[in-house]
Amino acid sequence: MKIIRVLLIGCGGVGGSLLEQIVSNRERHAADGVRIAVAGVCDSRSVLQAHISAGHNDIDDDVLKAILEAKAAGKSMTEICKEKLLEGILVADLSPPPADDLRNLIKSILRSEDTVLNAKHGLVVVDCSASESLAPVLASAVQHDGCCVVLANKKPMTSSLEVYDGLMSTARRFRYEATVGAGLPVNTMLRRMVSAGDEVRRIAGALSGTLGYVMSGLQDGRPFSDVVTDAKRLGYTEPDPRDDLAGMDVARKALIMARQLGWRLNMEDVKVESLYPDTLSPAFMSSGDFMASLTELDESYRHRCQEAKEQGCILRYAAVVENGTCCVGLVSVPQHSPLGRLRGSDNLVEITSRCYSGSPLIIQGAGAGNYTTANGVLADILDLQDVV
Amino acid sequence: MKIIRVLLIGCGGVGGSLLEQIVSNRERHAADGVRIAVAGVCDSRSVLQAHISAGHNDIDDDVLKAILEAKAAGKSMTEICKEKLLEGILVADLSPPPADDLRNLIKSILRSEDTVLNAKHGLVVVDCSASESLAPVLASAVQHDGCCVVLANKKPMTSSLEVYDGLMSTARRFRYEATVGAGLPVNTMLRRMVSAGDEVRRIAGALSGTLGYVMSGLQDGRPFSDVVTDAKRLGYTEPDPRDDLAGMDVARKALIMARQLGWRLNMEDVKVESLYPDTLSPAFMSSGDFMASLTELDESYRHRCQEAKEQGCILRYAAVVENGTCCVGLVSVPQHSPLGRLRGSDNLVEITSRCYSGSPLIIQGAGAGNYTTANGVLADILDLQDVV
Repeated sequence: MKIIRVLLIGCGGVGGSLLEQIVSNRERHAADGVRIAVAGVCDSRSVLQAHISAGHNDIDDDVLKAILEAKAAGKSMTEICKEKLLEGILVADLSPPPADDLRNLIKSILRSEDTVLNAKHGLVVVDCSASESLAPVLASAVQHDGCCVVLANKKPMTSSLEVYDGLMSTARRFRYEATVGAGLPVNTMLRRMVSAGDEVRRIAGALSGTLGYVMSGLQDGRPFSDVVTDAKRLGYTEPDPRDDLAGMDVARKALIMARQLGWRLNMEDVKVESLYPDTLSPAFMSSGDFMASLTELDESYRHRCQEAKEQGCILRYAAVVENGTCCVGLVSVPQHSPLGRLRGSDNLVEITSRCYSGSPLIIQGAGAGNYTTANGVLADILDLQDVV
Repeated sequence: MKIIRVLLIGCGGVGGSLLEQIVSNRERHAADGVRIAVAGVCDSRSVLQAHISAGHNDIDDDVLKAILEAKAAGKSMTEICKEKLLEGILVADLSPPPADDLRNLIKSILRSEDTVLNAKHGLVVVDCSASESLAPVLASAVQHDGCCVVLANKKPMTSSLEVYDGLMSTARRFRYEATVGAGLPVNTMLRRMVSAGDEVRRIAGALSGTLGYVMSGLQDGRPFSDVVTDAKRLGYTEPDPRDDLAGMDVARKALIMARQLGWRLNMEDVKVESLYPDTLSPAFMSSGDFMASLTELDESYRHRCQEAKEQGCILRYAAVVENGTCCVGLVSVPQHSPLGRLRGSDNLVEITSRCYSGSPLIIQGAGAGNYTTANGVLADILDLQDVV
């Protein structure tokens, strides 16, 4: 039985779904000869870990379930796990932020021995948080033998080139599929193409489910303000919809793809078009005022959609990675092109390369959702079992 | 530097393109810390290998280029390499078929030591042939420590379940991406989904470029006989187009996908609709007579296309893997569905699962071609570098 230890950073949302899937797939993993042992779980307030020096190798499934319940109820993990803390089964570190201690925690887990099997196991540090500050910790973690890193968090991939290079210098112990398109095999395919020497010439993609929903609404002739208000009401947007409409999430995904092609770019090199003007930015007004001001933009969007339509085109919010540059914003695409035919919140990525030159390689499907994203993360963890 | 030794079976077509890519990518692989050493090359007539016991670890690039030239000119590899044979750099075994000796050859390569580095390296046996008879050899090869298998050849995947289980029992040392959709990440994605526990409910795909071309022609209102004659003239079909029109190649791909879902099916369980009636089969007439008889089928296809059109549908030749069964044949799909919108020779696969339930995951692009297929094989070889 191959034992893969996991240290999970971020256990709400995607991280929570990952814990659920680890627990519910125990039997199937056993049939595949693998066991995922959760050595520790961090959220933004605390680190909870199995009490290794007292002989506890990993956190029990019933504790993992309790953590999930605590997170769902908005309670602290340590509060819920108090009993196990008192019994010396768990150790908690309440110092916020956990970043400072993470380096030592990783080292101590790597040094520790499985007290049952008298063996050392590798460790996969899984980042499902949205934190930027942990990126250097991850880049140094992956330098340790037997330590792998898996990301759902995009930020370590879009941090400084120094951090990026650190992560990529041990590319065989590093996976990040879920950072673009959730579970879609976009990064996996780019990795395969680059490794085999296929020359990628252009990547164009609709990479935000939220903005896909907005653009489909505009295409149907609805006012911009209506569509954004609906998207917020349905929970498709961040609490402040400007976090989606500014396009920064799509910009990060564009940069992740471009860097994989070997392009030495940083976030400030990505040309990003925001779907709202600076005058409506958080610097000048609250989220509520922004929502009330949305109607100001309706006429401009109606006009742009009409213009595109007259040319047989559709307006899409897309990332275009081409000729050494990344552009993110509104593009007018032919109605019958793959991007033009896209509807709703699905992601779609077109890759043009030496192999896929006549017509592009297309990957399309749900590109968000905790369950789907966690599935991509879990596949990455299992894919690392030969090197961890 | 990680050294991956390769024994290549089949060096025309895809195998030839693979050799070319191995040679032309030397520098880039070196930058990635990998060297692919070609220990031996087999075609249907002979086995050529580096003379290991005389201290030659792998076949030189100039010899590999000579092999490619020989194959392109229809000459024997050993003829071209005579000089190196005389110099004791190469060893040739002319006994056809090479299957009998392959087992021993694999063992001898695995036992041999790199005389320069004083080290043993693993071996990837790469099957780019169309042979069925080597399947059991591959299934036993992959049982040796440090021996991996990569397939472009579909037949070992659709052979007996015993052989399939043998290959899959060491799934970490076995790759077969190029057996479905050439370089498209269809098998990779299925592997990821199954490993992470996503429940795949349905796979539907257009998996033959040739039949895609034929169906697009019918859609345009052209007579069946015309389209097939054109396809043959353009080199899109096998020399006898019945080899494509019978649907067996698509049936193999359907079975490969179904088996990955854990379904215990064999080729005889795949329901296959042939695009010509039994009366026109090779048992009753030559390829030439078949081509002359094609017009007999025009009216029937015209009628079926018309029927589909009246219902807003398009006729496609597709594989459907669902509810424990595999069906391959003509299906009538809505005009605006992904399969309905497909044109020309691109492949398209729709996967419906727990993660991709609202709308399917779609992978689309060129699904054939020596260069594209060899790229998929090369990515597989490099992906195995941690276990070989």
